[in-house]
Amino acid sequence: MTIQSANRCKWWGWGKDSESFHLPDPDQFWAYIRDRLGETKPSPRLDSLSNVDVRPSQLSADDLKELTRVCEPGGVSTDNTERAIFSLGKGYKDLVQMRRGLIPNPTDAVVRPESEAQLLELLRVAAQRQLAVIPFGGGTSVVGGVEPTGERKTITLDMSGLSRPIEINRESATAVVQAGIMGPDLERYIRPAGFTLGHFPQSFMHSTVGGWIATRSAGQNSTKYGAIEKHVQSVRLAHPEGILSTPEVPAAAAGPDLVQMITGSEGALGVITQAVLRLSARPKVRDYRGYLFRSFADGVQAAREIIQADIAPALLRLSDEHETESSLALRATPKGTAAAIERVGRWYLGRKGLDLQTGAIMILGFEGSESAVRHERAVAAKVLKRHGAASLGSGAGRAWRRGRFSAPHLRDMVLDRGIMIDTLETSTTWDRYLDLHATVHDALRDALGERSVVMAHLSHSYTDGGSIYYTFLAPQEEGDEIEQWERVKAAATTAIVSNGGALSHHHSIGSEHRAWIRDYLGEEGARWLSTIKRSLDPDNILNPGKLVPEPDDTAAK
Amino acid sequence: MTIQSANRCKWWGWGKDSESFHLPDPDQFWAYIRDRLGETKPSPRLDSLSNVDVRPSQLSADDLKELTRVCEPGGVSTDNTERAIFSLGKGYKDLVQMRRGLIPNPTDAVVRPESEAQLLELLRVAAQRQLAVIPFGGGTSVVGGVEPTGERKTITLDMSGLSRPIEINRESATAVVQAGIMGPDLERYIRPAGFTLGHFPQSFMHSTVGGWIATRSAGQNSTKYGAIEKHVQSVRLAHPEGILSTPEVPAAAAGPDLVQMITGSEGALGVITQAVLRLSARPKVRDYRGYLFRSFADGVQAAREIIQADIAPALLRLSDEHETESSLALRATPKGTAAAIERVGRWYLGRKGLDLQTGAIMILGFEGSESAVRHERAVAAKVLKRHGAASLGSGAGRAWRRGRFSAPHLRDMVLDRGIMIDTLETSTTWDRYLDLHATVHDALRDALGERSVVMAHLSHSYTDGGSIYYTFLAPQEEGDEIEQWERVKAAATTAIVSNGGALSHHHSIGSEHRAWIRDYLGEEGARWLSTIKRSLDPDNILNPGKLVPEPDDTAAK
Repeated sequence: MTIQSANRCKWWGWGKDSESFHLPDPDQFWAYIRDRLGETKPSPRLDSLSNVDVRPSQLSADDLKELTRVCEPGGVSTDNTERAIFSLGKGYKDLVQMRRGLIPNPTDAVVRPESEAQLLELLRVAAQRQLAVIPFGGGTSVVGGVEPTGERKTITLDMSGLSRPIEINRESATAVVQAGIMGPDLERYIRPAGFTLGHFPQSFMHSTVGGWIATRSAGQNSTKYGAIEKHVQSVRLAHPEGILSTPEVPAAAAGPDLVQMITGSEGALGVITQAVLRLSARPKVRDYRGYLFRSFADGVQAAREIIQADIAPALLRLSDEHETESSLALRATPKGTAAAIERVGRWYLGRKGLDLQTGAIMILGFEGSESAVRHERAVAAKVLKRHGAASLGSGAGRAWRRGRFSAPHLRDMVLDRGIMIDTLETSTTWDRYLDLHATVHDALRDALGERSVVMAHLSHSYTDGGSIYYTFLAPQEEGDEIEQWERVKAAATTAIVSNGGALSHHHSIGSEHRAWIRDYLGEEGARWLSTIKRSLDPDNILNPGKLVPEPDDTAAK
Repeated sequence: MTIQSANRCKWWGWGKDSESFHLPDPDQFWAYIRDRLGETKPSPRLDSLSNVDVRPSQLSADDLKELTRVCEPGGVSTDNTERAIFSLGKGYKDLVQMRRGLIPNPTDAVVRPESEAQLLELLRVAAQRQLAVIPFGGGTSVVGGVEPTGERKTITLDMSGLSRPIEINRESATAVVQAGIMGPDLERYIRPAGFTLGHFPQSFMHSTVGGWIATRSAGQNSTKYGAIEKHVQSVRLAHPEGILSTPEVPAAAAGPDLVQMITGSEGALGVITQAVLRLSARPKVRDYRGYLFRSFADGVQAAREIIQADIAPALLRLSDEHETESSLALRATPKGTAAAIERVGRWYLGRKGLDLQTGAIMILGFEGSESAVRHERAVAAKVLKRHGAASLGSGAGRAWRRGRFSAPHLRDMVLDRGIMIDTLETSTTWDRYLDLHATVHDALRDALGERSVVMAHLSHSYTDGGSIYYTFLAPQEEGDEIEQWERVKAAATTAIVSNGGALSHHHSIGSEHRAWIRDYLGEEGARWLSTIKRSLDPDNILNPGKLVPEPDDTAAK
């Protein structure tokens, strides 16, 4: 059995085995962490997953016979290590479990279809034999989106067999790709034709187009290019009853938008096999710069005014005071001439009443033609000035671009030291923004205790509101790591939903946010979701336990 | 009984009774029509609808008692004239019938709720008593969206009792309004705060926010501001089971997008009662100009390149050669100095190989700040030059803006002369655009015969494609007006769906496009739509007969 994708990522963390990550100034960073969290106890992990103790596959010989009948040789695996890897995502809870080889609900087989026809046939076999089916793209879910429920026999579809680009339509600026294609492979395919998708989630290196669509993914440049739902012109979705292929048209007034029903459906209505994606011209100019505001509140005002001024920055990322401080601890300490320049810079900022240690940094990036970037920058400049922002230059922009995909690597290093680290995100309207930002911050701090760091940033702005993305750290409670995390997560999520925040801005629902979806959508909204799910998947075989509220889900307030 | 909205529009045509429309140069226009269609025989219409012969209401005394219990006094009417007016939309077929007082399937009562609570209670009464319910906003449907099926007792909800604006949120740039509010009332409400919705369908003067959402309406400026689905942040929808209120957040990854399910649902899943709409700043500058291309094909290339250059014109409207010619017949003939200037202009165009009589006119409009309009115009200018367009100046732009809502008035005048006139629209990807344009043109001409005019324009451009909007005229076949129209409509619609066009770009499905939805969405797509409808409206009381394919709908190919 060679399911090649099994070795995509380190089983215990982020990235390929060959990848490593180095702190620019380890002493400075760990001193900052010790100052906030105190001493922590290293948390060991297994050397290898090869002898992992996983519950045996529950599939019968008949089940396996039917599955192997459909697939190419080697397309079905019940190997323990394979099953372990395909039974968890890459959230904090997943990593805590995986590092110790604890797989609470292993899948019963990893199955790799090599074509849409095989996939459809697998779904029919699954429907007939009442097997649950979980599509697995990059497996980077941080909301429990790919874990079996443990309540029924389950197969996990390794989508790496459907990962081919199909064609580019230059005139219509679209690309047709199979759902299992990874971010870098997609960009490599369309780049020679002068295109980019412009979709760069932090998971970009290891996640798939199908996963992006299934979770309503947003990327770091989505403020300009739009989140994934803006990119999907049409989609093919396999369902035990057949292939749903939405019309390939740019716009239509022909009933509820089926593409927007499938986008965000998390495998619960079928398996996305293919998509037509809208592309953009690769930008001629990329201009990213840093700015310092006296406070996060000042920066949020500026962000709102920039986005309401009818321009579309490729990036508008505003760190709150806590994240700004933490990012200083993370960077390389300036030495020699750089240190001298920084001293002058700090003196200059000080004269304007600004302080790196207590202010809020914004990275503002524009992409496009030279004239478009010039125009947009000029519009933004007026707003920035009005709110007292000082330029930190393009070095800050370059530094952000260099490190844009590396945060999950840092997470692994922090975990090794026995520190809980996780992120969560929401969005809300501008009038509620600062209140929600403070309320969730306080809820996290309350739940984490004094020895903790809670920081946040605004990363996606809309005319009517913006996202808030939190990172939080605290010493692990040894032996109670999962319970500790669940307590913290519940406190934050309840604060979000009770105060007008989105249950998720771009991570989706999965199993971890499911308990709140009734509070979030309201009784009638939750009833719609359940009714639609039940009518399209009456046997509940399509990624059960995700997204859709279950009768015994209690409001977690 | 005083259902005030009954007098909103002329019962036999478009606009208020007080409105009238004058051709700039009637002799020239009618000469053009005679040249193409030959002599036609005037088509009479009733003087008044007051004695219209309408099947009596089928409601029982108990039905009426229950309905009147819920409403304010005078909120339920079974008056024949009222019922006639609320039983048809404003499409060609509707007008042919209404002008003769033929109401094939009259509603059984017009009911006017004055609050969401009353409306919800009415739905419960309807569910209990198995009455079909049709929401009626402005009643401007051109796809049979408001007509009863005639198969069951039906009540029509006059939404004019829920037409109040509720509040503006300046910080989040949104407005909360009841669904029955009309276009002009909405713009008047938000204008003092510096906002516009930017949504101007041709029906703007007489249609409602709820109608726009229910039909996935697009407006004349939607290329910049986005079609209605981009404006709806959240929505309240009444369903016999309760009120579905979607979360008021700017963006979320929390399952299938319920707002995008409700947008386009045509009353078949519930009744939209309220919406939060995203607003834009009123533009400081409006700059509309005309251009002449040698051919429609040249203009389409230019349109595609403009929209793919990452700018957003407020209007990009390109008439094909037939529509260009027809628009010359419609305008005032220049006299005196104007005629002299036009002669010079034609000589100048001729030197560039362009001819008003055989070319294609584009109206290109930009809106926004002075610097934004300057930037966008500069980007467009390069493309226009590359494709040999000659400027016709801002007079052409002003003329378009003056007449932007008047085409339906012209329709009434043409109908009086015994001429069939109707419009239909689609969209497709750029690579298929010119082929589809020609194919549908030919299908219309074939169905209409030699004595006909078929013309089209591109009005909405996207990076991946554009819309096509047809207008067609032919002498009415006396006594067979409806059959004639049905034959033509079927020929065009089949050509659209068989050649990669959207079944509708912005008119929606209603009852008139329903027969094609199975071909358009495919078997599995149609099954989804039917399954969702059945699961959420098991008794099929919510605007039955619209949108959702029925078992005996045959592919009309």
